[in-house]
Amino acid sequence: MPGTALTALAIPPLVDQHCHGIDRRELAAGDFAAYLTESDAPPATGTSFFDTQLGFAVRRWCPPLLGLEPHCTPGHYLERRRALGAAEAARRLLGATGIAEYLVDTGIPGDLTGPRELAAAGGGATWHEVVRLEPLAERAADTADGPGAFLDALATAVTDAARHAVGFKSVAAYRHGLDLPPDRPRPAQVRTAADQWLLTRAPGERLTDPVLLRHLLWSAADTALPLQVHTGFGDPDLTLHRSDPLLLTDFVRAVRPTGATVVLLHCYPYHRGAAYLASVFPHVYADMGLALTHTGARAHAVLAEMLELTPFGKLLFSTDAYGLPELYVVGAELFRRALSRLLGGWVAEGAWSAADAGRVAAMVAADNARRVYRLGRSDSRPYRPGTEPSG
Amino acid sequence: MPGTALTALAIPPLVDQHCHGIDRRELAAGDFAAYLTESDAPPATGTSFFDTQLGFAVRRWCPPLLGLEPHCTPGHYLERRRALGAAEAARRLLGATGIAEYLVDTGIPGDLTGPRELAAAGGGATWHEVVRLEPLAERAADTADGPGAFLDALATAVTDAARHAVGFKSVAAYRHGLDLPPDRPRPAQVRTAADQWLLTRAPGERLTDPVLLRHLLWSAADTALPLQVHTGFGDPDLTLHRSDPLLLTDFVRAVRPTGATVVLLHCYPYHRGAAYLASVFPHVYADMGLALTHTGARAHAVLAEMLELTPFGKLLFSTDAYGLPELYVVGAELFRRALSRLLGGWVAEGAWSAADAGRVAAMVAADNARRVYRLGRSDSRPYRPGTEPSG
Amino acid sequence: MPGTALTALAIPPLVDQHCHGIDRRELAAGDFAAYLTESDAPPATGTSFFDTQLGFAVRRWCPPLLGLEPHCTPGHYLERRRALGAAEAARRLLGATGIAEYLVDTGIPGDLTGPRELAAAGGGATWHEVVRLEPLAERAADTADGPGAFLDALATAVTDAARHAVGFKSVAAYRHGLDLPPDRPRPAQVRTAADQWLLTRAPGERLTDPVLLRHLLWSAADTALPLQVHTGFGDPDLTLHRSDPLLLTDFVRAVRPTGATVVLLHCYPYHRGAAYLASVFPHVYADMGLALTHTGARAHAVLAEMLELTPFGKLLFSTDAYGLPELYVVGAELFRRALSRLLGGWVAEGAWSAADAGRVAAMVAADNARRVYRLGRSDSRPYRPGTEPSG
Repeated sequence: MPGTALTALAIPPLVDQHCHGIDRRELAAGDFAAYLTESDAPPATGTSFFDTQLGFAVRRWCPPLLGLEPHCTPGHYLERRRALGAAEAARRLLGATGIAEYLVDTGIPGDLTGPRELAAAGGGATWHEVVRLEPLAERAADTADGPGAFLDALATAVTDAARHAVGFKSVAAYRHGLDLPPDRPRPAQVRTAADQWLLTRAPGERLTDPVLLRHLLWSAADTALPLQVHTGFGDPDLTLHRSDPLLLTDFVRAVRPTGATVVLLHCYPYHRGAAYLASVFPHVYADMGLALTHTGARAHAVLAEMLELTPFGKLLFSTDAYGLPELYVVGAELFRRALSRLLGGWVAEGAWSAADAGRVAAMVAADNARRVYRLGRSDSRPYRPGTEPSG
Repeated sequence: MPGTALTALAIPPLVDQHCHGIDRRELAAGDFAAYLTESDAPPATGTSFFDTQLGFAVRRWCPPLLGLEPHCTPGHYLERRRALGAAEAARRLLGATGIAEYLVDTGIPGDLTGPRELAAAGGGATWHEVVRLEPLAERAADTADGPGAFLDALATAVTDAARHAVGFKSVAAYRHGLDLPPDRPRPAQVRTAADQWLLTRAPGERLTDPVLLRHLLWSAADTALPLQVHTGFGDPDLTLHRSDPLLLTDFVRAVRPTGATVVLLHCYPYHRGAAYLASVFPHVYADMGLALTHTGARAHAVLAEMLELTPFGKLLFSTDAYGLPELYVVGAELFRRALSRLLGGWVAEGAWSAADAGRVAAMVAADNARRVYRLGRSDSRPYRPGTEPSG
Repeated sequence: MPGTALTALAIPPLVDQHCHGIDRRELAAGDFAAYLTESDAPPATGTSFFDTQLGFAVRRWCPPLLGLEPHCTPGHYLERRRALGAAEAARRLLGATGIAEYLVDTGIPGDLTGPRELAAAGGGATWHEVVRLEPLAERAADTADGPGAFLDALATAVTDAARHAVGFKSVAAYRHGLDLPPDRPRPAQVRTAADQWLLTRAPGERLTDPVLLRHLLWSAADTALPLQVHTGFGDPDLTLHRSDPLLLTDFVRAVRPTGATVVLLHCYPYHRGAAYLASVFPHVYADMGLALTHTGARAHAVLAEMLELTPFGKLLFSTDAYGLPELYVVGAELFRRALSRLLGGWVAEGAWSAADAGRVAAMVAADNARRVYRLGRSDSRPYRPGTEPSG
């Protein structure tokens, strides 16, 4: 165990470059457990979503923040959480994450806190918005009269979002798979696809048309804001091998002349492929969000694989936390401990210098994200906290 | 080394959820070595099948059970084995595995022991049969007169097997690849495929028709018995990237309404994908059989990857042992040591509680398999040891 | 840390089975750094190619050889290198690698040292040539008058190369991807493809035609010299998932009757698939060249995965060094340390015997390559050092 290394490596406050809001409700045991899995079904007979690396990590790191022993039973933990109330529990949990800045994807459905409320519960952290692309199209389709109006409304929505957001996010992996044609669809194709979609779409129906999904990617690329793309594992809506980030290789090539930056999210178990893309394409970055949270005691091993090829200036931190403040705690704690263990270990065996380790820790924890998203730089793009998104 | 953890973690007697019979013959060196590899050819000039992780693991764990030093030469070991006789060697080796219950795939060709004889040599262990699907079709084809009679005979064989077996097994990966259409083939398709196959089939020829392979999968699913599917590496009959368990994703989705349980076998090197499927689909389970045996000193590292996403109630133990009693020894020993090392390590570093580690060890070693296959539960399905299969 | 194991494991002088020449120029910082990455572009704003595992490994292992402290800054290192002069720096660096024998791919473009000059700078090491296939076709196309003359000239070039080289190398992964039809193209196909290529080819244009790429593979196979195939990661000319060595499975099957030996290079991150191929096909071998160099502090972890399935008589060592003598130092040092750490660790925990570990170390470091390439065996094929290739 890299005990001394752990204390020696200073990791600055974190920039969480991809997360979501939290659920304000007092959660019953089943609802709480449902946030511990990417499954959309009840657990199999005789099994529990608490019996996972993530469940064990929550029981390891969260009870002490609510005044309980580590590894207490789920029942004890939830009882204590209810006694404190969801708001107070969130305040205690988020206050202990060491996250200084949140980049919040506001496009996830459900009654979740917005970025402002999240950051306030996190002890006055800074926040920024990342706009999810597909809901922009779905909202435009809900109200537009015909494909021309739809495409105009969508273009306006993207432009408006680019004014207040720090980045875009695509969930094309969930809606189709990343095995999309890489090139920019021609206007006539987009028009035809829009026409077809609007004709057949039920109200509220999700966008799955591959031409329109590509149109969104290219519309985002044209704004020159960083474009986050979900890759790798997630809920069962996606087919994992069709979410391999390497399927984006030709898109990465095609989009390069626009000046767009592509940030690959999660990537597991294809993270070595994502690391490769980040190593050979200057405009590609990667994070491991969901992957560290869900692998718990193995987070350091997964991060280690990511640190094989990813240039140290290209790796970003995120929790991908969603619904439970506990997931911020676990995401941040596992990341910091994994990073300390790895970098501390390499210093201890002489492979790295301590100075380099400290420098890399700061890069991955916060500096890379600040540079990529131009956070807090008045000379590059305006930083305007305080405008809670309505979407 | 987790020395104290190793002794502290109690692992109950094992349920080996997937294995085969053993070879009763006195084996010459070449025949013995051929069981150490998935290759179907002699070793390359200047190389030996003993010079593999599996070969080294056999030399580590088996000689002491026959009164020799660990790591003695293959020559010394085989000499001692011959001096004892194959039967006595098998008795000593199987008696030391700690396997309490064998689930035996009886569909592998060759003069192997049946489950009863295997369990008896194992010191009176319990046994159950897993019926391999493809030989049911091949035996029906050997005798049936026309496609109608063939399909009737096959249906009867599946129904009969479901009465005495605890599960089915498919080797579609070897016969075609897992890149099969996922849906249930229509009766007319099945009839046409049967007609075609019977017209062109040489006696004893193996089934490779994709429609009939799918018909077998769906026939097994209809019995509601667990369906084991070979995935990942094996002998050179298969093409590895066409055996990725993720290729079963759409089948897993399609078969879900039947209530069938799918058990992914081996999975290596695609085990993280299998773990994902087990994590998001309630009816999917996974084991690592062959993978731990063949990776020897690396078994803990491979198991660790499997324990990233697999819910702890979804992972099963097997040896996939075949031919040599030595492979039971190695499979069981490597599994127990890998599990102890990992879980003990996580307890030692504070990530897991000792109580949780013990509970998870019992689940993976035996309890999960007992629940999935309803072993020894008189109230669920009859447990009838003692009916040696004729097939 | 396997301190005692490290000193206990004797690793003989290395045979580097795949490398390139070095750049003779005094290199500016940017030119030096460009050799540390597979990217063909400048580093992203705010990042440096020195901030990678390879950059850190160079700074760990090379400064002491030039009289500096480990981990000194890139600036200090390059200053010292310039003060010594490129030739003297190369002499000091190459002299410390412990490489006794170089197998040099002479087909890479640029003003690099030939094998003789490289071996001389390496303190009088032995050298052999590996002939890259695609440039043979490109040179034949540059001068031939029509497809018949082109194919004749190409056949002559292959035959001539087989007289002085110890192996061939294919970069079909860069030129098309490994998803090529596996079978030998028919003469009429080859003729048509040659005709088409010559008609449309600009002078100096690279070969990307899939039929001609296959013709090269089969022409090399017919010589019975070992055929090295680039697989896995490399520069952004390739698409990584189309470079998976498993895509060669059917080619491996098809080429087996010719007696050809296939050596899979690099393989990362698909090295477990390459290990599988080496384990089930007697004529398949694998190395990890580029993968160890670029993963630096993680080299032991990557090598460990390769040592899961690869039979110990099937794994070869290489640096894949190119341009910088530093890459020979790093490749050799990381390999030796990774091998010592792994094998020493397995001995320390009792999984392997010390004698086996020493034997395997000698096999992987040198003996396997000597056997595969028939090096220094006057009774098998003539060993003729001293004929510097002109190509």
